[in-house]
Amino acid sequence: MNALPATIVAALASVLGDGPVPLHEPHFDGNESRYLFDCVASTYVSSVGAYVDRLEADLAEFTGAKHAVATINGTSALHIALLLAGVQPGDEVLVPALSFVATANAVRYCGATPHFLDSQESTLGLDPAAMRSWLAEISTMKSGECVNQATGRRITAMVPMHAFGHPCDVVGVMEVAAEYGLPVVEDAAESLGSLINGQHTGTFGLLGTLSFNGNKIATTGGGGAILTNDTQLAKRAKHLTTTAKVPHRWEYNHDEVGYNYRMPNINAALGCAQLEQIDSFIASKRRLYDIYLEALRQVNGVTLFSEPRGSRSNYWLQTLILDKDKVDQRDEVLETLNDNGLMARPAWTLLSSLKPFLGCPSAPLTGARLLEQRIINVPSSAGLA
Amino acid sequence: MNALPATIVAALASVLGDGPVPLHEPHFDGNESRYLFDCVASTYVSSVGAYVDRLEADLAEFTGAKHAVATINGTSALHIALLLAGVQPGDEVLVPALSFVATANAVRYCGATPHFLDSQESTLGLDPAAMRSWLAEISTMKSGECVNQATGRRITAMVPMHAFGHPCDVVGVMEVAAEYGLPVVEDAAESLGSLINGQHTGTFGLLGTLSFNGNKIATTGGGGAILTNDTQLAKRAKHLTTTAKVPHRWEYNHDEVGYNYRMPNINAALGCAQLEQIDSFIASKRRLYDIYLEALRQVNGVTLFSEPRGSRSNYWLQTLILDKDKVDQRDEVLETLNDNGLMARPAWTLLSSLKPFLGCPSAPLTGARLLEQRIINVPSSAGLA
Repeated sequence: MNALPATIVAALASVLGDGPVPLHEPHFDGNESRYLFDCVASTYVSSVGAYVDRLEADLAEFTGAKHAVATINGTSALHIALLLAGVQPGDEVLVPALSFVATANAVRYCGATPHFLDSQESTLGLDPAAMRSWLAEISTMKSGECVNQATGRRITAMVPMHAFGHPCDVVGVMEVAAEYGLPVVEDAAESLGSLINGQHTGTFGLLGTLSFNGNKIATTGGGGAILTNDTQLAKRAKHLTTTAKVPHRWEYNHDEVGYNYRMPNINAALGCAQLEQIDSFIASKRRLYDIYLEALRQVNGVTLFSEPRGSRSNYWLQTLILDKDKVDQRDEVLETLNDNGLMARPAWTLLSSLKPFLGCPSAPLTGARLLEQRIINVPSSAGLA
Repeated sequence: MNALPATIVAALASVLGDGPVPLHEPHFDGNESRYLFDCVASTYVSSVGAYVDRLEADLAEFTGAKHAVATINGTSALHIALLLAGVQPGDEVLVPALSFVATANAVRYCGATPHFLDSQESTLGLDPAAMRSWLAEISTMKSGECVNQATGRRITAMVPMHAFGHPCDVVGVMEVAAEYGLPVVEDAAESLGSLINGQHTGTFGLLGTLSFNGNKIATTGGGGAILTNDTQLAKRAKHLTTTAKVPHRWEYNHDEVGYNYRMPNINAALGCAQLEQIDSFIASKRRLYDIYLEALRQVNGVTLFSEPRGSRSNYWLQTLILDKDKVDQRDEVLETLNDNGLMARPAWTLLSSLKPFLGCPSAPLTGARLLEQRIINVPSSAGLA
């Protein structure tokens, strides 16, 4: 009889009580209903409205990005950001194998191919050193463009992702990207409020993307945003997300294939109320981290993931890392936690292992594969502490 | 000095007063705020929730479709419907040139090429006779597949669209489609509540799509739905719109490239309240039609579009048709109406004339081109009558 699953359950139950405790649920303790009511009263519930403008301004202020463009979800934000970064059909885009499927799907929407990279234990994100040696091995520069020698395809962008809200080493990643002339699109879907050296995640790359899905630290029901300091790119983002309609008093002229990706005002109303509470959400999650740390101190075989040095995590999802010699117990731990009403989930199945991405180019995934076997996310809602 | 613009303004002002009167604004006279409040209180604001289930059931009941799958907007519904109809990269899809850009964009999202067809004056939609002779002229059947002889590409679907809510001759269209083995995806984005021989538009084709954008007869802020009587297709629609995630207690397995296209519960809450009022919205719009008809009776040079025989229009947008010898006055009429606070718009610029679709295959567009020059939509909100 193995003790680890039971010990973890006991430690978490000492914090959470008997459950059931969801993995993550949103909190609506602010102006949500008031703003929704006001939005309906205004009749502006769709893609134009004061709450959309305000949410974009609030996001720009909160993140320090010069521009924020609200979108219908994080996936659509990533799709547009990749297009704006210059990704074209037939290209390859470097993405972490350890990420949510949206990261790779968005590449596919551009007609491009994801090229998977390894992640590191210290950040759960892209490993700059591994990336550097991989690119040195497989790529060549042709007329200033980075080309995968094995496939002959151009590599045209790099997408670091801040897993579970914990900042990856985007500074290190950007150094490697610069060596190969690659624009960086920062997938900050999970890291609203997470900082690196005081700078908000999603504002390091040429473009960054946020998500406000229902499971995120702040939600608009469904929603996302594109961040950028480049005014021209921000304008293009708005154009492409608004069916590429050329402004005119009545004419319907669309000058390129565009998308119906603007966030509705009704969703933005929810988002404005949520953003007012973001500091308290983060504070609560950081308290929960401290409490979990204490509760797990005596549990051997597992570590609570701590924000990388120099960064501040929003601790969107609290992350347990099993010891390397305990990976065979991952599923039993997951089962025991869920059976006891403490909702838990593993990391994503590596994207390189999913049917739609089999055969896509991939670096060695030693780090990512090990993390996949070791990670367990446990209940993390704001308000639990 | 030409009298037509001033006469039209006078006739409409006799109904609407001095303005400003928007082209179309939504009405929230029902349970909108109550359901939104309830949705927030439940914490289920995102892509899973009771209002999504209810909206899907309500839509199925209202339209008579066996299944309705709620989506993030009408464009996404059309994209998925085309994929489910079997449209593949490199194919051609037959669409009306006289339609909103989403109809052609959705074809592009599939990696396919729109092939434009003509519209008829009696319905403002696809002209079955013109379509039949065009397909006879340009296509050939190869191994049971319809192939465009000029481009060598397969033609794999046909998308009739009910412009401004007025039912097109989808029965005639489907006869032609059947002759060429083509599945029909019915773009009913604008025609919620419109019937042909008592049957709801969007339920004739293999799949149909609805839109609940803010300007539509019923709105969810942003939203749409896929209608189908085919249970397997409905399941596939749900799967593809939910990132193609294979259900599992905790595993993240996605078995194909999927989409983040599910309608959030918060938007569905709005939709449920709107759908409760749909009959009164339609009744109001039909009253407005009668009143406009009376007001325009003495105006020479323009006709109010009336629902085609055998069909019932939701009269989403009231449609003036200028006489053929008055097309040179269209812009002046538009200008005069808008200058007088009576918001008006022309038909869409023909999709075949838009930059992203220049060079796409096209039938002769005699009917559509004339309609483009003759159509003017005028204020149409429910509640104006």
